Amino acid sequence: MRVPAAALSCRACSPPVPRRGGGGAGRRARLGPARFGSARSGSGCCCGCAPPWRSWRRGWARGLARRPPAEPRGSGAGARGSPPPAAFCRPAFLQLTPEELRRADDHTGRAVQSPRDGRRRLPWSTGYLSLFSLQGRKGFYFHYWALFDGHAGSGAAVMASERLHLHICEQLRELAGSADPNQMSNAEDRGEVLNDAVPRFHLEKAVSHESLVIGAIENAFKHMDEQIERERASQHLPGGCCALAAIYLMGKFYVANAGDSRAIIIRNGEIIPMSREFTPETERQRLQFLALLRPELLGKEFTHLEFPRRIQPKELGKKMLYRDQNMNGWAYKKIEEDDLKFPLIFGEGKKARMMATIGVTRGLGDHDLKVFSSNIHIKPFLSCFPEVRVYDLTQYEHCPDDVLVLGTDGLWDVTNDKEVAGVVMEVLTSYEPNDPCRYTMVAQELVVRSRGVLKERGWRLANDKLGSGDDISVFVIPLGGPGNYT
Amino acid sequence: MRVPAAALSCRACSPPVPRRGGGGAGRRARLGPARFGSARSGSGCCCGCAPPWRSWRRGWARGLARRPPAEPRGSGAGARGSPPPAAFCRPAFLQLTPEELRRADDHTGRAVQSPRDGRRRLPWSTGYLSLFSLQGRKGFYFHYWALFDGHAGSGAAVMASERLHLHICEQLRELAGSADPNQMSNAEDRGEVLNDAVPRFHLEKAVSHESLVIGAIENAFKHMDEQIERERASQHLPGGCCALAAIYLMGKFYVANAGDSRAIIIRNGEIIPMSREFTPETERQRLQFLALLRPELLGKEFTHLEFPRRIQPKELGKKMLYRDQNMNGWAYKKIEEDDLKFPLIFGEGKKARMMATIGVTRGLGDHDLKVFSSNIHIKPFLSCFPEVRVYDLTQYEHCPDDVLVLGTDGLWDVTNDKEVAGVVMEVLTSYEPNDPCRYTMVAQELVVRSRGVLKERGWRLANDKLGSGDDISVFVIPLGGPGNYT
Repeated sequence: MRVPAAALSCRACSPPVPRRGGGGAGRRARLGPARFGSARSGSGCCCGCAPPWRSWRRGWARGLARRPPAEPRGSGAGARGSPPPAAFCRPAFLQLTPEELRRADDHTGRAVQSPRDGRRRLPWSTGYLSLFSLQGRKGFYFHYWALFDGHAGSGAAVMASERLHLHICEQLRELAGSADPNQMSNAEDRGEVLNDAVPRFHLEKAVSHESLVIGAIENAFKHMDEQIERERASQHLPGGCCALAAIYLMGKFYVANAGDSRAIIIRNGEIIPMSREFTPETERQRLQFLALLRPELLGKEFTHLEFPRRIQPKELGKKMLYRDQNMNGWAYKKIEEDDLKFPLIFGEGKKARMMATIGVTRGLGDHDLKVFSSNIHIKPFLSCFPEVRVYDLTQYEHCPDDVLVLGTDGLWDVTNDKEVAGVVMEVLTSYEPNDPCRYTMVAQELVVRSRGVLKERGWRLANDKLGSGDDISVFVIPLGGPGNYT
Repeated sequence: MRVPAAALSCRACSPPVPRRGGGGAGRRARLGPARFGSARSGSGCCCGCAPPWRSWRRGWARGLARRPPAEPRGSGAGARGSPPPAAFCRPAFLQLTPEELRRADDHTGRAVQSPRDGRRRLPWSTGYLSLFSLQGRKGFYFHYWALFDGHAGSGAAVMASERLHLHICEQLRELAGSADPNQMSNAEDRGEVLNDAVPRFHLEKAVSHESLVIGAIENAFKHMDEQIERERASQHLPGGCCALAAIYLMGKFYVANAGDSRAIIIRNGEIIPMSREFTPETERQRLQFLALLRPELLGKEFTHLEFPRRIQPKELGKKMLYRDQNMNGWAYKKIEEDDLKFPLIFGEGKKARMMATIGVTRGLGDHDLKVFSSNIHIKPFLSCFPEVRVYDLTQYEHCPDDVLVLGTDGLWDVTNDKEVAGVVMEVLTSYEPNDPCRYTMVAQELVVRSRGVLKERGWRLANDKLGSGDDISVFVIPLGGPGNYT
């Protein structure tokens, strides 16, 4: 690994550290004006700094130990060799009283937890990271929000919420170091391809700044996953988590998703998808392809083919619909002995499972997850790599009602994109455009509507359908308004 | 393999054959009114029947033997065990005179070949296949157009043009047989999942008719490829081909693409993509994934990683940008010995190549294609499976100016979707809406504009840029107009 050329810090935790290795020593991080809204039942916020801005992630419904928000632990917590992550707790920015903490633990009541005063406590600048410019001289801002939706234990989710942004920071730092103007003079001698988009060699592919940032985020997820793997025994990090992160950097939003959370932009009433979900259904062909090429990973218990239902031994030799790694449609095949094994992918919609075990196919952690009562590991099929989508804020003049919404599957299971856009517009119009509280109120409304109201027959939505029984976390991030991107 | 329960025929070649196996014996195929336009330099038409409606496919620029259109050879040519495919020739529907055939061979002149009289000779009903209904009693129609863009020899392209529709027919026939109402009564005893969308078992996935047709088309491509593989030595079938086929069946267009041809629908001025191209760039991650899992396929000559340029041995230990099968962005790595191998994917745009050999990653044939001066086979990386997209004609009321355009890369390399849509609208408005010739004139105009005009500095477009030096084939298929889909 390369030694970082530029040291970075979070202003909230420690003063900026002078750069090592030439040019720009002693530059200061800048504070950019910002705001956001967030609410949940429970909700979560991950900003770009270490505790107490530690991210919240879901898992409380799974009976985990939790404690009040921790005190800041200084800025020494790097991406590697960091102290043990804290146990599950509510995010500090919620400012919960002991009574409210107790209420938050009451699963029957399903209280919605909002920030106490979004206007003062939740500006965009609550959490930030600063970095020296890829261009060399000009400072830029790095803002970060993330949702970590845990399963099978909270350890991986907690660690990811405390460390992912540090890994992103580390990757971007390496990038910034590589692009240091003081290093560029002898770059060709060193054989490096630098992060400018102009090829310097004949037959050299141009690589844009944007694709370097995407690569940095992708590798940050990988390093996060590797850290969880390394430290899972010593730090007690059970389970895994879906991760959805939005990074604002130099006028662009990078939305990285690994799991089944979702991000959409609502701009002038139009819905722009900023992520896609990774589930056994959406990733069927990748999983089948791996299983075909590495059948030993199936432990002789599974077949890589998909069938519409389980096949009975008495059906041997008969016809059955199937599809393999190459197919999107279905065709018939004669049932053979191998087809009697359990299909790698089985079920549909929210009930679709890989190896009859897990309903998501990307995320962090899960290194110890096995098929029930077997020694077959799930992890080789799970990918920790996110899909990163980019939204260029400078290409459009945004109004205060344009927002980026991040939500866990608990939201999207019962509220579709169009309905979310409707709630956003409805709530925002009832507040003044310059009221920063309005985004928190949108998030709260989304959570409350998706949870529903407790009636005799359980939690019910306005249309009397069942509300989401899952945890729900939502971010509503304004894209417009003066001074947000300076 | 299952014995087909329903025999099918092409009316142009033989009378319909009575069904075997109960219900509907002696039903007759129906003739549906249809029309289309086609022009090329050269252009091609593949309709759903055997010669003389044999498809034309490209390859003439590669100095292949060719002969005048063949006489019909009867209907005995099935998907399997068929007579040797004909050598390369112009499609019969062009009705070329000996002089025109000579002109067509003149590569310098690059004459555009249009059907002589589209009004009489090229109705949609020129070629058709009939099939008994999936629903049991009602007849339906199967229309077919396809472009086969050959490379490294014409044999695979010729055979595909003569047989692919028969494979599709065979697959649909099996499907129709499975859905025979007379067979459904004891279906459950036989353990079959039938092609209705209603699950009959608890936890059974619903399978729609549409996905069965998609599966049939996917498998038809696979069987076509297997036939080329089996017969390539005895029938002399060198090379491979991209294949783009449009199948009209029961109110829907199924557009199947394996290669770098493209299909778009232009509806009320709006462009609807109906395919995507499969190239080393668009399929990079699939190819890298296979190479990572099966490194023996690389013959110690290639690395699965992508780099922006070739790495020199003197750069060992230095930093270089790379991306692997998980990444869309780029990141740095330290150069190791293995990175000095040639990248599996190299180059960009039209110059991107897999294993420094081929610029498309899906298609038919290529079973003998090897990396130059080596024993490394390309085929394991090439996929014969198409992506199939569906367009439901019944969901929209189409006007006579709504069309489906199929074109080989020779068209799209110099004329983008928007420009094609512009030409379509421009030409169609200059003809009466009920003039069937107008679609042929659109196709002709698209080909002529993409070829350009011969000037001192070569073939030039209207904007003075270089015209397409590649072969160009175009279909313009009307989606609207009375009686087209009955």
